[in-house]
Amino acid sequence: MAEEEIQDMAETATVAETVTAAMLIIGNEILSGRTKDANLNHLACELTALGIRLMEVRVIPDIEAVIVDAVNDARRRYDYVFTTGGIGPTHDDITAECVAKAFGVPLIVNPVALKLLEEQVKKRGNVLNEARMRMAKTPEGASLIDNSHSVVPGFLMENVYVMAGVPRIMQAMFEGVKPSLRRGRRMLSRTVACNLPEGTIAEGLGAVQARFPDLEIGSYPSYQSKAGFNVAMVIRGVDEAQIAAAFAEISDLVISHGDTPVEPS
Amino acid sequence: MAEEEIQDMAETATVAETVTAAMLIIGNEILSGRTKDANLNHLACELTALGIRLMEVRVIPDIEAVIVDAVNDARRRYDYVFTTGGIGPTHDDITAECVAKAFGVPLIVNPVALKLLEEQVKKRGNVLNEARMRMAKTPEGASLIDNSHSVVPGFLMENVYVMAGVPRIMQAMFEGVKPSLRRGRRMLSRTVACNLPEGTIAEGLGAVQARFPDLEIGSYPSYQSKAGFNVAMVIRGVDEAQIAAAFAEISDLVISHGDTPVEPS
Repeated sequence: MAEEEIQDMAETATVAETVTAAMLIIGNEILSGRTKDANLNHLACELTALGIRLMEVRVIPDIEAVIVDAVNDARRRYDYVFTTGGIGPTHDDITAECVAKAFGVPLIVNPVALKLLEEQVKKRGNVLNEARMRMAKTPEGASLIDNSHSVVPGFLMENVYVMAGVPRIMQAMFEGVKPSLRRGRRMLSRTVACNLPEGTIAEGLGAVQARFPDLEIGSYPSYQSKAGFNVAMVIRGVDEAQIAAAFAEISDLVISHGDTPVEPS
Repeated sequence: MAEEEIQDMAETATVAETVTAAMLIIGNEILSGRTKDANLNHLACELTALGIRLMEVRVIPDIEAVIVDAVNDARRRYDYVFTTGGIGPTHDDITAECVAKAFGVPLIVNPVALKLLEEQVKKRGNVLNEARMRMAKTPEGASLIDNSHSVVPGFLMENVYVMAGVPRIMQAMFEGVKPSLRRGRRMLSRTVACNLPEGTIAEGLGAVQARFPDLEIGSYPSYQSKAGFNVAMVIRGVDEAQIAAAFAEISDLVISHGDTPVEPS
């Protein structure tokens, strides 16, 4: 085999396939405290399971310039951007307009969305007024995201997925787009829990982290009464053998301080 | 009275005392989905009650450059910045270092924090090791935020409030700083709920919004079975009379479409 080919193979094998994402939660109601967001944790868990790294989440108000800037910033920096909220028929639903502006394209009547809307309006005996027509509009070039729950048009514009804010609709939309997402190497994780104070184990834990720079080791204190332990040390990474080695070292560390390590189920 | 004085008085009377804030939620565990954030909604509600407008929330990972940039960006743009997470004795607790770097000052041993730490370590029979000593460090010039729950040092550096990620500790810290915060004009809010579809009422609602540009009118669909209504239209603003006028107009709008407006308690 030519040296070049070997070099190529080695590179292919070692390049970590990191796929990144950002989430934009759009809506005054989250910032005022009126509404508790329920989409962040759902999306975070789903992306983690797909090997996609959620790098940043921003909660922003219904202000055009802010949304446009946030979309443009995020779509250039990450592989995927997921937005929730601000798609619907009322005046405060401005996400579609803002995404169109961010991409510098007009907001147009999407023929597929219009057909779905016409059917639904007819079925429910409603009128296809101007406000409802807003729900048939997407940026030029966008493709629709399936929505089995309502006629609110989720859409995909290049790498930006625009989804509803209502959790069950957002979740249904995400289920629809999931199969088409590029997956990265899946982050695996194991946890060592114990009853030592964090400050007792911190130095040794830092040393383990230093020996395994490719892993992410986090230490999270818990309510002992609730979780049954005092601190959870979470090891995350893509290499199962490395994680197992770090797991063993942290377990030994716990034992060396006179406690018994536990792996929570 | 001189014309100038009248002008000054008019300006004082009409300038809205808007106090703004941003929140930075620091921690890989939120982005990976391992931990559900519980601080955003708490802080949002508290700030709203104080008349402080939460303009932006960012969830960011335990990466120094990202934290430093986010702190610097936010502290320049908003009156207050509140951070949660990343203060503790372990290697992944880097918020204090990052805030010091953001302000261009060294991280020093804070004498008050050290005294508290020494007392706690003695009381619990622990050792004051290097890891625990991290919890006595704050950026030079910072003042401590009281923490009745543990020895983790919350601190205030100019307009940046650095708080714990554990909700009950974060909440206790916020209670401590609350009295010192400058309050803005309190946002008042009233809600009109009804069972009409959003699309039926959207146009009229947009017209009400256009007539009251100083108010923020949001429309939020609900699960009818849960909330007892189909859509909640929330009117927010600082002027009670304006809110009452918009409330009456939206109520009339609901009636004109054959439904009965309700004000949820």
